Amino acid sequence: MMGGAIGMAARRAGSASRVIGVADSQETIHRAKVKGAVDEATLDLRAGIHDADLVILCVPVKTILDAAAAVIPACREGTIITDIGSSKAVIVQQVDSLIHKLKSKVHFVGSHPVTGSEKKGIDSAEMVHLLGAPCVVTPTQQTDNEAYRKVDEFWKSIGLKTVRMSPDDHDATLARSSHLPHVLAAALVCIQTDRSMAVSGPGLRDMTRLAGSDPAMWSDIAEQNALEVSRALKELGQEIVRLSGDIHELAAHGTPGAESARERLFRYLADARQRHEKRFLVAPKVVLPEDNEDIQDVGEPIQM
Amino acid sequence: MMGGAIGMAARRAGSASRVIGVADSQETIHRAKVKGAVDEATLDLRAGIHDADLVILCVPVKTILDAAAAVIPACREGTIITDIGSSKAVIVQQVDSLIHKLKSKVHFVGSHPVTGSEKKGIDSAEMVHLLGAPCVVTPTQQTDNEAYRKVDEFWKSIGLKTVRMSPDDHDATLARSSHLPHVLAAALVCIQTDRSMAVSGPGLRDMTRLAGSDPAMWSDIAEQNALEVSRALKELGQEIVRLSGDIHELAAHGTPGAESARERLFRYLADARQRHEKRFLVAPKVVLPEDNEDIQDVGEPIQM
Repeated sequence: MMGGAIGMAARRAGSASRVIGVADSQETIHRAKVKGAVDEATLDLRAGIHDADLVILCVPVKTILDAAAAVIPACREGTIITDIGSSKAVIVQQVDSLIHKLKSKVHFVGSHPVTGSEKKGIDSAEMVHLLGAPCVVTPTQQTDNEAYRKVDEFWKSIGLKTVRMSPDDHDATLARSSHLPHVLAAALVCIQTDRSMAVSGPGLRDMTRLAGSDPAMWSDIAEQNALEVSRALKELGQEIVRLSGDIHELAAHGTPGAESARERLFRYLADARQRHEKRFLVAPKVVLPEDNEDIQDVGEPIQM
Repeated sequence: MMGGAIGMAARRAGSASRVIGVADSQETIHRAKVKGAVDEATLDLRAGIHDADLVILCVPVKTILDAAAAVIPACREGTIITDIGSSKAVIVQQVDSLIHKLKSKVHFVGSHPVTGSEKKGIDSAEMVHLLGAPCVVTPTQQTDNEAYRKVDEFWKSIGLKTVRMSPDDHDATLARSSHLPHVLAAALVCIQTDRSMAVSGPGLRDMTRLAGSDPAMWSDIAEQNALEVSRALKELGQEIVRLSGDIHELAAHGTPGAESARERLFRYLADARQRHEKRFLVAPKVVLPEDNEDIQDVGEPIQM
């Protein structure tokens, strides 16, 4: 899904002279061609990447290290490798160590485009909205500066809004904004009775959409970022228990305690609405590649 | 918004010989006519309802009693009154008491169509999806059976799937499926940092959509259903704290404790996905009014 979405966007934006897809089935190759996600595609990893300028590993977090281990020895010197994994500290550390161990002359830069859907596979590629979505890029002290710059420019060229963070900062931040919501959506389903599930509307449907995600993929992400996800969940759980106590006080209609609890709840909901609207209701500034001054110095399109 | 949506649907389905809107501004009357939500509309409550068969109170929960107090004395004998409030026990008890006190010959039946959006006003009427949505109807021991049957049939005639519950059952059930999600969406916004809010994707956006709802309206609903909302929130909060502990164990990579925590988390996410898909991915059976055998005995269209 993500590889297909990125391929389509790169071809539309002219970000690459050739987009080569490496797939695990002829069916995926066929679908990728039909969708215009690739210029060429192959089942042969080595043939696909041997002359690439940029390799993007679009595989689940737990297999990124294996994918990197297969890719690195097959790349020519100077190839830049990036990924799209939802966790970064473990992945960046593992891949950097591997490159060091193999004494390879490739460059790795961790990336995480913060978009997607609960679906998988090339046929869901159109569900991914790349334009205006954030993309965290996580260089470290060891990262080659030119490689970082090229990866950053590639994401910008297909319309993403890049943000630079350390891998640890990324994991602490995304634990809250992405990993926790996936676990929370499941918890929200699990506390429903069969009856409350049946008598529910678009609110519950949208709030539990992420519960439709792949359980193995999200167990892996939670595992790779366990301490931060655990910390964020604990904070939210305690906040909800506190709110439960506050709302309990509302039942004592007409008392000063109930009045003050009502006032607190109103202010809490009003603050949340304000923060929510500030982030999500303001139309995001969409920078189309041709208008993006930042990328005028890219030079030649990057060959993926 | 809800009044407009119901008016449009009733006119399309031929559920009423005339749909009369009572609005609080000429602008709303104008917009309702442009949208085809009403046959006639007026600012004069008494003129609007004096000959109605069915009056639907489409106002926020806290003003339903006031609306009923204005409506009841203006209705002719036998008029059926219903509402669309998100809480039921307090409203049904209050309106039934009022009718008793006024020795009025009107009939009240509580309703709650479980659909809507975070918006308000007639211009958002198209955002409301009525077709296939659940509608809880809450008769009590005192409710006139014929009035209950007509309200039930009206909702079915515009495509809703009615469910009969006692007002208390409704409140316990909807606390989980609707009221809690509204408070949870706010909590999920409030635990975000400015940075995590900025680096978030469609998952957080959809899970916090309800945080855009009217804070006064939802404070009122929480107040009217405080004990049940508080109970459901406490259960969810404790579940999340428990999950936080489980996920913390995942950090001890390679230990038997981490292995078993991984297995539990995977099964938890997999169960949630299964329940989620069962409810939301199976296309709802849509019964169009003309195919709905249940309503062939309605006789004359009801005048609203």
